[in-house]
Amino acid sequence: VDFRSDNVSGVLPEVMAALAEANRGTMTSYGDDPISARVEERLSEIFEKRVRVFPVSTGSAANALALSVLTPPWGVVYCHSNSHIEVDECGGPEFFTGGAKLHALEGAHGKIAAKDLEEELKAAPFGNVHNAQPAAISITQSSEWGTAYRPADVAAIGALARRHKLRFHMDGARFANALAYLGGKPADMTWRAGVDVLSFGATKGGAMGAEAVILFDEGLAQEFAFRRKRAGQLFSKMRFVAAQLEGYLKDDAWLKAARHANGEAAALGRGLAQVPGVELAAPVEGNQVFAVLPPTLREALEAEGFRFYTWDAGAPYVVRFVTSFATERAGVDRLIAAARRHQNAA
Amino acid sequence: VDFRSDNVSGVLPEVMAALAEANRGTMTSYGDDPISARVEERLSEIFEKRVRVFPVSTGSAANALALSVLTPPWGVVYCHSNSHIEVDECGGPEFFTGGAKLHALEGAHGKIAAKDLEEELKAAPFGNVHNAQPAAISITQSSEWGTAYRPADVAAIGALARRHKLRFHMDGARFANALAYLGGKPADMTWRAGVDVLSFGATKGGAMGAEAVILFDEGLAQEFAFRRKRAGQLFSKMRFVAAQLEGYLKDDAWLKAARHANGEAAALGRGLAQVPGVELAAPVEGNQVFAVLPPTLREALEAEGFRFYTWDAGAPYVVRFVTSFATERAGVDRLIAAARRHQNAA
Amino acid sequence: VDFRSDNVSGVLPEVMAALAEANRGTMTSYGDDPISARVEERLSEIFEKRVRVFPVSTGSAANALALSVLTPPWGVVYCHSNSHIEVDECGGPEFFTGGAKLHALEGAHGKIAAKDLEEELKAAPFGNVHNAQPAAISITQSSEWGTAYRPADVAAIGALARRHKLRFHMDGARFANALAYLGGKPADMTWRAGVDVLSFGATKGGAMGAEAVILFDEGLAQEFAFRRKRAGQLFSKMRFVAAQLEGYLKDDAWLKAARHANGEAAALGRGLAQVPGVELAAPVEGNQVFAVLPPTLREALEAEGFRFYTWDAGAPYVVRFVTSFATERAGVDRLIAAARRHQNAA
Amino acid sequence: VDFRSDNVSGVLPEVMAALAEANRGTMTSYGDDPISARVEERLSEIFEKRVRVFPVSTGSAANALALSVLTPPWGVVYCHSNSHIEVDECGGPEFFTGGAKLHALEGAHGKIAAKDLEEELKAAPFGNVHNAQPAAISITQSSEWGTAYRPADVAAIGALARRHKLRFHMDGARFANALAYLGGKPADMTWRAGVDVLSFGATKGGAMGAEAVILFDEGLAQEFAFRRKRAGQLFSKMRFVAAQLEGYLKDDAWLKAARHANGEAAALGRGLAQVPGVELAAPVEGNQVFAVLPPTLREALEAEGFRFYTWDAGAPYVVRFVTSFATERAGVDRLIAAARRHQNAA
Repeated sequence: VDFRSDNVSGVLPEVMAALAEANRGTMTSYGDDPISARVEERLSEIFEKRVRVFPVSTGSAANALALSVLTPPWGVVYCHSNSHIEVDECGGPEFFTGGAKLHALEGAHGKIAAKDLEEELKAAPFGNVHNAQPAAISITQSSEWGTAYRPADVAAIGALARRHKLRFHMDGARFANALAYLGGKPADMTWRAGVDVLSFGATKGGAMGAEAVILFDEGLAQEFAFRRKRAGQLFSKMRFVAAQLEGYLKDDAWLKAARHANGEAAALGRGLAQVPGVELAAPVEGNQVFAVLPPTLREALEAEGFRFYTWDAGAPYVVRFVTSFATERAGVDRLIAAARRHQNAA
Repeated sequence: VDFRSDNVSGVLPEVMAALAEANRGTMTSYGDDPISARVEERLSEIFEKRVRVFPVSTGSAANALALSVLTPPWGVVYCHSNSHIEVDECGGPEFFTGGAKLHALEGAHGKIAAKDLEEELKAAPFGNVHNAQPAAISITQSSEWGTAYRPADVAAIGALARRHKLRFHMDGARFANALAYLGGKPADMTWRAGVDVLSFGATKGGAMGAEAVILFDEGLAQEFAFRRKRAGQLFSKMRFVAAQLEGYLKDDAWLKAARHANGEAAALGRGLAQVPGVELAAPVEGNQVFAVLPPTLREALEAEGFRFYTWDAGAPYVVRFVTSFATERAGVDRLIAAARRHQNAA
Repeated sequence: VDFRSDNVSGVLPEVMAALAEANRGTMTSYGDDPISARVEERLSEIFEKRVRVFPVSTGSAANALALSVLTPPWGVVYCHSNSHIEVDECGGPEFFTGGAKLHALEGAHGKIAAKDLEEELKAAPFGNVHNAQPAAISITQSSEWGTAYRPADVAAIGALARRHKLRFHMDGARFANALAYLGGKPADMTWRAGVDVLSFGATKGGAMGAEAVILFDEGLAQEFAFRRKRAGQLFSKMRFVAAQLEGYLKDDAWLKAARHANGEAAALGRGLAQVPGVELAAPVEGNQVFAVLPPTLREALEAEGFRFYTWDAGAPYVVRFVTSFATERAGVDRLIAAARRHQNAA
Repeated sequence: VDFRSDNVSGVLPEVMAALAEANRGTMTSYGDDPISARVEERLSEIFEKRVRVFPVSTGSAANALALSVLTPPWGVVYCHSNSHIEVDECGGPEFFTGGAKLHALEGAHGKIAAKDLEEELKAAPFGNVHNAQPAAISITQSSEWGTAYRPADVAAIGALARRHKLRFHMDGARFANALAYLGGKPADMTWRAGVDVLSFGATKGGAMGAEAVILFDEGLAQEFAFRRKRAGQLFSKMRFVAAQLEGYLKDDAWLKAARHANGEAAALGRGLAQVPGVELAAPVEGNQVFAVLPPTLREALEAEGFRFYTWDAGAPYVVRFVTSFATERAGVDRLIAAARRHQNAA
């Protein structure tokens, strides 16, 4: 059973159906097609606000392009030290922004605490020509540790952003999982809490390769359009990227998929927490489970064919299990049973 | 009937089938999947050489990334004044290369003549620290005017490149159309003629959103891999991009599609050439037809629902018709008939 | 006698005196010194407007930084095909702007004609996301061919810039020479004619290594300050760069120097024009003389120790002579005499 | 008395004399002058190796250009968290390298310990396409805390660099102070210890605005030349930048100046350490003194007209005093006396 990542899964049936449906006749290219228009309409409904939507092909592209309209090249972007933009994008944000600096903050369970950010900003060299200038904040929802910022957490950071005239980005590669976990309204987790731009992930949730950059500030749209084009992210057959998003959003397929994935993760977390010698490294608030394992257990599980990532090979030894829309309960149960069996025998 | 571009068409049935086929179980992400491996294998067979293949999502990304490993930021890239990289990519090549200069050359029917390039290189400031340095040549096959470079044309340019230590890129967004027109071997049109990197297009030919950057020089692969990642072009669910390419290449689907498109373009070209008052602006050597029309004819055709682009609104008045795998002969015939009818009445 | 360039000369006595004078006691670094303040004050008087002044160390830096606040990375900068920014800065403008495109226009004697620019702008793809966007115009005063734009010429271009919402830059590496030739007021040649930013040259005119970027639009100052710093052009001992400018401007030293240089050039031009077989390639309107020479004459002059650059080795054979504050009439006369002697003997 | 920085001082008499001397006749521009050649020769003698020397106008430019030839845009540069490149250059290194990431390490008294770097490199993601790649190390000599790396310290870092195939840069804005403090040979502190490129500072030591980038690896020279030019750092009247360096190096003026400055700092440090309630925050190993002061003492000293920087306004309260070639013992003694008087009265 494969728990390496949600992106080892295929795509939702709704996505595949939408692609087949979109494959009829000719359609204007580069986004001037009716499917793209409908997706923008639908996301505006979901977020209770007229938003501008720019589909791109990867989360890295979504994040880097988003940041590129939120910071000048001499800006500083505050982010978590585990964030995808800081760690996993090979310098993409630096490339797209023309050299902005990412400033990594620590924070429990993958989240930035508003008070830590506040301390940082108090000491920041606003207006000093010798120093790169505070420009933006980026948080990840759900976080790299599978935890979810509450709307009040987001709003506290958003208030700091406004007070210090910073822009606010949310990397929502797993936005659906956070929303499914928290309930509530998408608007309350984003623009009402001060978020300017959201990387709205769909690929991990069940699309093929589609992420939507959502601009809550329409004033950013023109610049974004030029930046997307020159980044090679304006698709000629845009209808097929839009169709993925349409299928993903249709009849709440995205939320149902996220609820399913979260449910499997919750079951996995509950089960592992009861295995002797195992403990959870972070609360399970989405579709990721981080567990502290004895290394021998990891080896035993791998030997039985379970697949997952070693998150931290230090002490403690942390591994990550990720569930998706396609995860089946039987596999979750088998993993728990195997862990229990091994630990009891140990 | 829609002749605006080949990218207004949907995708080949082989592509859709390959996507459905790929949507099974879990697969390692980011390109370490078996489909990606098979595509690299297949393209190595087609090009009679071990090649390295990097799928990306757009032709602009393919070109810009290709150029970024062929020129330093202070380099000059020679290209045709009508080329996509010079005109249609909103400065993407400049962005990806870190500021290289494109140097546009004129040339009949969208092609650079080796002797014109030779003149240019004779006068070029090699080694002079005040000037940007000649670094690469980029040609488009088939060209922006629908014409095809013969293998000997490519080889003449390739010889110049080697003599002057320049790198050689081919934008093959419509490579299949040129190959279908010319016959012969892909290798003779590319690496045997000196090409270092090929943007091997599939989207226009019938894929959904997949282009393969093909490196004939394996030494460029490591740098390319990092540049692709930081450009946001390394897909988590790469299997679906690879599957498009696999479907496109399967049983020569790509060549059959190109032959069909070329055949329709040829028929359209022959028909239009015989309409009084109309003449072709360039030989039809692929799936594009450029015709000099009286403006009244253009209006009449548009009024009847035919769709196509005005290429040059000056005098003469040039319009472009593009065919694809999905173009039907009936539509071509209707267009010719409508044109003849209108001109005879005029 | 050395006519290769004005930058082969040393510095004006006023500049050396100002440096010695500035070398007293301690002074706040990075531009917060009284000399810098006085220079800004003095230039505000000269230009009859409150201007912001940013000294930098080279003309290339001045131009590239100026352009970097006038165009986005996806912008197009219109300039003359012979301009320094296009030809002689090794891609510096592309580097500083993050990849903007320079679009070179032809024009007699190194100058862009407003009507040619107007034609170009009429056809420009404003707002089309596929194309780099018209953003700025840059002209050189005096031009690379030693000619001077009249205030009305500048104003005609400035009017086009405003109409099309473009920014307007003037490369004034030899601004003093143009001003000395034309007479009139600096304001009329610049901001009153629509110029937003002037690279005000001093090095060629007699400073050691000091150019002042003058912002007529104060709104650009904050961004400029950060860009200058990160470009490594904010000097710790700024007082010495400012002192060069102060000495250069003191008691009209700059204008006297320019008048002297222009006078020598005029004498040289008049003399050469009367030599059989020689003709001027451009009117002499500053401190540069372009002459069409028989190649044998060039060789003869070089053999006698005269030094100058071959500007165009094609047919016709054009050479350039540049005068400076340090050029002596005796040398000019010797050159004319030598040319006459050689041609009469030929 | 002004202890704010060494760059609030003017220039050495040897520098002024060299400038006056250089101001004779015409000289080839852009570095092909005899003074530049002599400087390269002299530095090759000093470093006991044929080196390539590129003068630039600021330390920020020197560092950023140096790094730009040592890391690809997707590289990571390890540096101290207090280093000038990380803190004080407004993102210049990111700009010049095309977006490389600086990775800041902590370390006592401004120095990176080899063992900390080794730990960092052990965990570094070499070869992983998702992560920016370790590329270079940069250390500052003397450090931002006024301390000096011993040759063995440098060599230990150099050995790590070689083992991990990283490049090694030294920011030597105050190289002279470290050398004067340590004694020994310049070669042992640099290339023999593995340094590839040195930013050899002269401005702080007594030049006007001249830093020499010294390449110990000649293979980097061609790329460096193009990068310097396009960065606007190739001076037309290079003779005057070279003359500053020549004057600075003449008859060991640089070392004498550094010894003087260090001597004053040592005296200041010894004196302050004996003042009740004051202690040194770092050993005095160059021309900088860092002292922990009661805030009331700082205010009292400022009220008496002493000038210096508050380095850390937290607890403890650290201030910095910098001496230069121009610092006089009387001023040092007055400061110590004032501090003693104030503290005794407290």
